[in-house]
Amino acid sequence: MENIIRPTLVVDKEICLRNIERMSNKAAEYKLKFRPHFKTHQSAKIGEWFKLFGVEAITVSSVSMAEYFATNGWKDITLAFPVNILEIENINRLAANIKLNVLLENREAAEILARKITNPLGIYGKIDTGYNRTGISSSKTGLINSVINRISTNSKLKFKGFLTHTGQTYQAKSTNEIFSRHFSALLKLKALKQKYKKDFPNIEISMGDTPSASLCTAFDEVDEIRPGNFVFYDLMQLNLGVCKLEDIAVRMVCPVVAKHLSRNEIVIYGGAVHMSKDTISNINGKEMFGRIIIKKDGEKQLLAPLNYVSKLSQEHGTLKVTQNQFKNFQVGDLVEIIPVHSCLTANLYDTYLTTDGETIKTMPKF
Amino acid sequence: MENIIRPTLVVDKEICLRNIERMSNKAAEYKLKFRPHFKTHQSAKIGEWFKLFGVEAITVSSVSMAEYFATNGWKDITLAFPVNILEIENINRLAANIKLNVLLENREAAEILARKITNPLGIYGKIDTGYNRTGISSSKTGLINSVINRISTNSKLKFKGFLTHTGQTYQAKSTNEIFSRHFSALLKLKALKQKYKKDFPNIEISMGDTPSASLCTAFDEVDEIRPGNFVFYDLMQLNLGVCKLEDIAVRMVCPVVAKHLSRNEIVIYGGAVHMSKDTISNINGKEMFGRIIIKKDGEKQLLAPLNYVSKLSQEHGTLKVTQNQFKNFQVGDLVEIIPVHSCLTANLYDTYLTTDGETIKTMPKF
Repeated sequence: MENIIRPTLVVDKEICLRNIERMSNKAAEYKLKFRPHFKTHQSAKIGEWFKLFGVEAITVSSVSMAEYFATNGWKDITLAFPVNILEIENINRLAANIKLNVLLENREAAEILARKITNPLGIYGKIDTGYNRTGISSSKTGLINSVINRISTNSKLKFKGFLTHTGQTYQAKSTNEIFSRHFSALLKLKALKQKYKKDFPNIEISMGDTPSASLCTAFDEVDEIRPGNFVFYDLMQLNLGVCKLEDIAVRMVCPVVAKHLSRNEIVIYGGAVHMSKDTISNINGKEMFGRIIIKKDGEKQLLAPLNYVSKLSQEHGTLKVTQNQFKNFQVGDLVEIIPVHSCLTANLYDTYLTTDGETIKTMPKF
Repeated sequence: MENIIRPTLVVDKEICLRNIERMSNKAAEYKLKFRPHFKTHQSAKIGEWFKLFGVEAITVSSVSMAEYFATNGWKDITLAFPVNILEIENINRLAANIKLNVLLENREAAEILARKITNPLGIYGKIDTGYNRTGISSSKTGLINSVINRISTNSKLKFKGFLTHTGQTYQAKSTNEIFSRHFSALLKLKALKQKYKKDFPNIEISMGDTPSASLCTAFDEVDEIRPGNFVFYDLMQLNLGVCKLEDIAVRMVCPVVAKHLSRNEIVIYGGAVHMSKDTISNINGKEMFGRIIIKKDGEKQLLAPLNYVSKLSQEHGTLKVTQNQFKNFQVGDLVEIIPVHSCLTANLYDTYLTTDGETIKTMPKF
């Protein structure tokens, strides 16, 4: 890490392995299939770390990502995104080679799949359990029936069950709220499972955002979890009480280029193109783009929250620091930044550097 | 464009050429050297479009970007970023092959350059004219003198003048405020030029953010402008009154994947990894990530501002639309989104598609 000269995303392999192992053990304990979401790391190499813990099935968020991981040997992929019918040919090609599942949440897409799918494809009904982004409300069984009926006209399409993304746990104000939101979503899916079990004896339900998969212990009748962020974690998860500081596996390492005493600001080479512009609220109510670790007397030290990344432009980052800490930054130093949202930060890099000194490639972007 | 199946950044080459020609003519009219900033497009191919208008000197924001454009034939590059002394070897290598200028704003970096630079390197003093991000306040002539004195001990280092980024024009509340902020910055640089002219008869001043370079007409004693965003423009510039709708050269083209009538929302495949999370305030006071163009009766139509990109997650975009427009979106349609901040949006793509159907590569990321 002493050789870093430019903003670099450093991944702590040991922490990642520990995070994967913990989640894998938890899934085993609750008899859940563990189908981790790979959108967080988007890297074939990190995918291999999951194989060490017996992971064989994964989740992705785009056809491109499914294509990338299929090329890298993954044979069982759920594409957790409302199916994009414009990619029907790519989906057919993928379904010819791997076990592929997609999500349906409307009749229009069901209609196209029923007419055009020529290879076996698993279908999950996407259920909205309160996040209000995508999915069918669990009470709309008329629409659910109509989607199921339409796909049943094509024998290649196999209805597998119901899937939800409980993204509302990210907006919880406390860990108790994460528990209650997860539980409310679980009840909705369980009711659907009961209702459709008669016609589909093997019906499955799939849940699993990182907050609930990390914290919750109620997984009654759940068949599968799909957390993704947990492999890296980040400030958002730390603030939610979902992980500890020592569970966060990623840092942006950035050079200090300027100091401005009159406003207690340090300027780093490291901006929106290196961190993304996701923010959380700092304890002073201001928006924060990351927290800061420096090396002092040979020891790494996480600075208190009033030292933070306060502004980002394209390549500049501004650190607001306390008067006390100001003197601990020198032009030419490297500082470490803990990202607010590791998925969006990691997405900006073509390569990561591991704490072992290995350079890891990520999937090509668009 | 009918063949698009995934989120794609489409660049209108004709509009870009018109934007470049207009700015190039303006620079000529005011006898300014035109040194456009290439951080907006980061593409060698688009760089060639600038050559059509006689552009030979460019601005970049990182050593990596300087290396990329130098490899692609550019011989005169200003690296408009406080010099990162950790990249001193790369800077020396570049300076051996091209005319390179860097920015200095503190003694520490001046010290390192004076000791380590072995090839001719142009130096601009970075002046803070009110943006408060980087630079020396124009009143701090003691610090300016000390930086100049330090670099004068190495004959390879040539002091060229003063440079500012008037980024405060982006936060202006009216075009009048853009004029006044630009003018105030200009006065500060002019005063410095007068002061240092005796010792440095060829001293230059360099300005030029997109708002002031597009609108202002006072460039008395300015030697050079460095706008970048104008090649694409975007919603931020439109809202500032800096460009017209027909000057915006970029669109994200995204497939519609879901519709939710109960909340007048359309879901597109196109999220934070395709647009970036920069926002501006919409007329309803809510944050907006982009405006929407649809095709209706074969005609393209920019929808009123109450139809807008209201939420972004990693790959999902949510369009809030009026009840009236809701029916005009169908699953499988392509919609066009005008980005809020084209620099950050374009940075997310490895390739752009031109309106001529050509695929253009951008520089490799980190």
